[in-house]
Amino acid sequence: MTVSLTTIYSLSFLVMSVAFAAACFLYRWVLRYKVQNREIAEVARLIREGANTFMRREYKILALFAAVVSVLILLLLPSPIWRGEPLTNLSMALAYIAGTALSAIAGKIGVLVANDANARAAEAAKQGIKPAFLIGFRGGAVMGLAVVGFSLAGVAGVLCLVGDATVLLGFSFGASSLALFAKAGGGIFTKTADISADLTGKVELGIPEDDPRNPAVIADNVGDNVGDVAGMGADLFDSNVAAMTSAIVIAQSLSGSLKNIEMVFVYSIIGLLSSIIGIASARINRRGDPTSALNSSTYVTTAVFLALTAAATAVFDGFSWRIWGASATGLVVGVIIGITTDYFTNDSRPIVRRAAHASASGPAFTVLSGVSYGFISALPAMVGIALSALVAYNLCAPMGDGYAIFGIAMSAVGMLSIVGMIISNDAYGPIVDNARGLAEIGGLGEETIQVADSLDSAGNTVKAVTKGFSIGAAGLTVISLLGAFMSEVNTALAAAGKAPISGFDLMDPVVFFGILIGAAIPAVFSAMLILGVDRNAQRMVSEIHRQFDSIPGLREGEPGVKPEYDRCIDIATTGALRELIPAGLVTILATIVVGLVGGASAVGGFLVGNIVSGLLLALFMSNSGGLWDNSKKYIEAGAEGGKGSQAHHAAVIGDTVGDPFKDTAGPSINTQITVVSLVASLLSGLFASFSLFV
Amino acid sequence: MTVSLTTIYSLSFLVMSVAFAAACFLYRWVLRYKVQNREIAEVARLIREGANTFMRREYKILALFAAVVSVLILLLLPSPIWRGEPLTNLSMALAYIAGTALSAIAGKIGVLVANDANARAAEAAKQGIKPAFLIGFRGGAVMGLAVVGFSLAGVAGVLCLVGDATVLLGFSFGASSLALFAKAGGGIFTKTADISADLTGKVELGIPEDDPRNPAVIADNVGDNVGDVAGMGADLFDSNVAAMTSAIVIAQSLSGSLKNIEMVFVYSIIGLLSSIIGIASARINRRGDPTSALNSSTYVTTAVFLALTAAATAVFDGFSWRIWGASATGLVVGVIIGITTDYFTNDSRPIVRRAAHASASGPAFTVLSGVSYGFISALPAMVGIALSALVAYNLCAPMGDGYAIFGIAMSAVGMLSIVGMIISNDAYGPIVDNARGLAEIGGLGEETIQVADSLDSAGNTVKAVTKGFSIGAAGLTVISLLGAFMSEVNTALAAAGKAPISGFDLMDPVVFFGILIGAAIPAVFSAMLILGVDRNAQRMVSEIHRQFDSIPGLREGEPGVKPEYDRCIDIATTGALRELIPAGLVTILATIVVGLVGGASAVGGFLVGNIVSGLLLALFMSNSGGLWDNSKKYIEAGAEGGKGSQAHHAAVIGDTVGDPFKDTAGPSINTQITVVSLVASLLSGLFASFSLFV
Repeated sequence: MTVSLTTIYSLSFLVMSVAFAAACFLYRWVLRYKVQNREIAEVARLIREGANTFMRREYKILALFAAVVSVLILLLLPSPIWRGEPLTNLSMALAYIAGTALSAIAGKIGVLVANDANARAAEAAKQGIKPAFLIGFRGGAVMGLAVVGFSLAGVAGVLCLVGDATVLLGFSFGASSLALFAKAGGGIFTKTADISADLTGKVELGIPEDDPRNPAVIADNVGDNVGDVAGMGADLFDSNVAAMTSAIVIAQSLSGSLKNIEMVFVYSIIGLLSSIIGIASARINRRGDPTSALNSSTYVTTAVFLALTAAATAVFDGFSWRIWGASATGLVVGVIIGITTDYFTNDSRPIVRRAAHASASGPAFTVLSGVSYGFISALPAMVGIALSALVAYNLCAPMGDGYAIFGIAMSAVGMLSIVGMIISNDAYGPIVDNARGLAEIGGLGEETIQVADSLDSAGNTVKAVTKGFSIGAAGLTVISLLGAFMSEVNTALAAAGKAPISGFDLMDPVVFFGILIGAAIPAVFSAMLILGVDRNAQRMVSEIHRQFDSIPGLREGEPGVKPEYDRCIDIATTGALRELIPAGLVTILATIVVGLVGGASAVGGFLVGNIVSGLLLALFMSNSGGLWDNSKKYIEAGAEGGKGSQAHHAAVIGDTVGDPFKDTAGPSINTQITVVSLVASLLSGLFASFSLFV
Repeated sequence: MTVSLTTIYSLSFLVMSVAFAAACFLYRWVLRYKVQNREIAEVARLIREGANTFMRREYKILALFAAVVSVLILLLLPSPIWRGEPLTNLSMALAYIAGTALSAIAGKIGVLVANDANARAAEAAKQGIKPAFLIGFRGGAVMGLAVVGFSLAGVAGVLCLVGDATVLLGFSFGASSLALFAKAGGGIFTKTADISADLTGKVELGIPEDDPRNPAVIADNVGDNVGDVAGMGADLFDSNVAAMTSAIVIAQSLSGSLKNIEMVFVYSIIGLLSSIIGIASARINRRGDPTSALNSSTYVTTAVFLALTAAATAVFDGFSWRIWGASATGLVVGVIIGITTDYFTNDSRPIVRRAAHASASGPAFTVLSGVSYGFISALPAMVGIALSALVAYNLCAPMGDGYAIFGIAMSAVGMLSIVGMIISNDAYGPIVDNARGLAEIGGLGEETIQVADSLDSAGNTVKAVTKGFSIGAAGLTVISLLGAFMSEVNTALAAAGKAPISGFDLMDPVVFFGILIGAAIPAVFSAMLILGVDRNAQRMVSEIHRQFDSIPGLREGEPGVKPEYDRCIDIATTGALRELIPAGLVTILATIVVGLVGGASAVGGFLVGNIVSGLLLALFMSNSGGLWDNSKKYIEAGAEGGKGSQAHHAAVIGDTVGDPFKDTAGPSINTQITVVSLVASLLSGLFASFSLFV
């Protein structure tokens, strides 16, 4: 059977419509539950308003940023407008805007639904674990389907309208810009609020986590939504679009009879369908274990995806079993990375327990053991990514020149194909986390809180798997973005009448120069975000102190006295954006400076250094943060002396260190790498034609 | 003027003799001071015995290890003995043994002299800062001169006897093996003792740092000697030999009229002479400032070196100004790296103060700010290394094929040429640190302790510069080892009748596979060392508790009651070696596995990944450890509430985290990288002829 591009585009839009229909169905299903508790309704309203405030502000700054960038694109990319074709420049600028806009809309939808879902999940927890689980999960699934639907439709739309893969880079860069704001900005927001709330509430005043007297408590809940739901969604939108884009850019440069671009779309379409099936299959089993419900729906999605892509490979002309193998390898490696991440961060495994035990000797040992195991935890994931790249290479190299890299790109597409499912699992976490807080605020009783607790803990466990997955996928994606960069450089060199390059030689000191600097950038970027959280938390802590000092009756909790929640939200918002922008600019400027100094070869090295050290640090920070978090929870559950013990005190310090590691810096590194890779590809013409020293 | 290799060898031995004469003179000068205080003499004796115990044990295990490795070399390297020339194998095995032996002897001398010097420096501090400074400095200089003398003589000896640069790799590998034991083993030893002494003494019992009641106190002082003096000496012996070796291996493969090998030796000889002049010039100025005395002698050495090498370039036929430029660049960059390191770790600069200020918000913020600034501090050093590699490349590339890499190697030789001076400054630190402890134990009075304190603090400040220097030098050395690896691979390929490779292409997934795994190894290695310190400290803490519980009157400090110091030394020794060996084996095995899977290309990538992430982590850990240490001292001097404040408590936790960072893992990474690079070069024949998947 043959499949044409036109059919593919129609199919993409059709499947997108199915996804949106499913999302609407799920959303309406969630809304069927009514919120009756007035306290909960009130707090949910405050959270919604806070989230809206943040997103409005964020999107306003982003719109400014996007306006500047799109004018620059219009003038300069892919080639200066006075030299090239104005229409292509216009297309690219518009594609860029579309990329930011679609990601923004998906994020907005996700936050909206999460907000409705968390109040309802709290209420439903009164009736037991099953309905509450489904509300949390299906609320998250709306975001998952929206993200995947938009990314598929966006890529298909751009390609269908323009027919040039290079313009897709603009779309992908748009998605990355937004992800940088959403993920890193949201990450700073959420940890600012979280740390300030803990420091002033739990530590200074000794009041519980979600006590409504604390002026930062709403900001904290807002943070869970904007950081974890919107940020994570934007991140995976970005990875998914980048994986498809790089596969398509490479596919365009390939010769041969294979239907390369069609294959990319078919895999993505099947991935979306499999995710819908997986989402529909999610049910809590008889033992009432939410973790296995989440995991088994992931495995269902994976199995359906593998079966359907195998069928497509058998049916469609020009589809290759080698590519199927590469993509299957990516998916399997993704699952394996997830499992090893779980080993390092799950409190029923030895590592978290050892870290908890180390806490008994004091906070320095909590930190040292967390750092050490975090370092070690990077190895299996990096070996996994390395092996899947190697297998994809060996499988696809016999197909012809350039197919090896295309195989790696398809491996990334394979890993990301089930991203709808991954996001559903991931967004489930903050929803039930918030539901737990709301259950406490609404006074729904010990039993309901326990139900919410067990849902929350499943969210934390599953998060490890999904995080491992998204880092693994990002790893493969950026390797293929490197391939896309080389394609673009060669296109630019050909246009300038120069000989193409065949690669980047490590023995070339210009490449090495790039590698060293590229490797330092993720460290600097992470540090700037962490310091940003720190500075911002200090601002918020003084605001909280001001409120406690100046609002009579607040500290004592007199009835009717409310803190000024919006001031804290304001500080978190303004600060997050203020701290984020320098970090983003440093990475982009470093890319440009390296390119101007050493040309395309230096940038090739820069990207590799950036990828390698970025992956290492992202894995390290995400996993050590996760294991500190869970070892604190493990101690709170009674181990090593339980709550209030020396070990607990130490574990709380470890958890505070881990907060910006795992929720701000670690997960933002992915986005930083993608942004840098896309900037490099977009500016390849400049780097190919000019360099200062080489 | 022409210079022949025979002249060079003679000159090398002559200059070595001068260095040894100078060392003997300095040692006798130190011994002129008599130790009169009986307490001090007794404790100094205990420290000497403890150090001897550790070194005897260490060298015994090392001898076993070396025996096994030398038999393996005899049988297999450079080619299997049944196929190649048995005489070459024998030479290489002997060279390996010589490498370990010379480094071991230098370490032994250093520890011996440091031991004699610290008691005398304590006594001399009674008479004022000048004599005490000179004893500390000259005691350290003995080690410096011994290390450089041995490395020069060893390299010249091997080359003069065998005439084959490949055999030199065996010598260098011997030096690396010993450095791994001395640096990482010594690092585990010293931090085990330090942390245990602090935890039980300062934290639990509230007794001062060097209180003789504490059973770990002697082990702690021994640790300063074996970790900082012997370990650092072995490390720089290793770097120096590796830099010369890689320059000579590359020089051998070059064609052209330049006197390449001669140049390497002339630069090293001049470096040693300049160090002697610099050492002789060290005097404390009128303001009595030991820091500027140490720094100005470094600058004197640098200036003399640059002048004399310029003269040599002008005088000798075939010497090149381009090479001189490359080497001068390395030296200047080394100084710049040192200065930036100082910026991040000196408590008169803003960074340490900011970290101290963050401590006021609690230990989590101490850790977060230290980690962040540590990350950022890696950037300037990595840019410096990258730029000096690039400059050396651009300077030397016009000289012909392969000269670019030779230029980088000479840049490393330039940086390391003044290593005699660097070691003198570095060994000064632990000597005056111990002197301070002895002054306290001997009850020499507040004024003497203050003198010792100011000497100690200068040691800490200068350490930053020397550490930056040695990491920078190691960075350039391993880049040139990469060049040596490629030379060896091509020799092996030529022997097997295969086509040579011209480089390692980043776009080749096999290379990328190696990079990813190579980058994870320094993280895993560091983690294993840190966890080793942790486990070992737990063993020692329980031993200390046992002694306090079972020796009557010890806790109360009754006169005549002594703890069993040797039990603690025993635990530190056994544990250090037990924890070190798995970490060393993991890195070596990873190299071999990657080579067997992906062949020479994968190993090339592996080395680069290892270098890049190793440099990043080494800089991060050394600098954040240093800044925590100094921010604690800054608070103790009265800032942020001074001793006993919340901030101080937090800063102590930061310092404990930093201890294994800066004294165990961080500085051992250099050695790990060198070991891996040499293993790769030695096994290049295997990797070139066999691989599983490629």
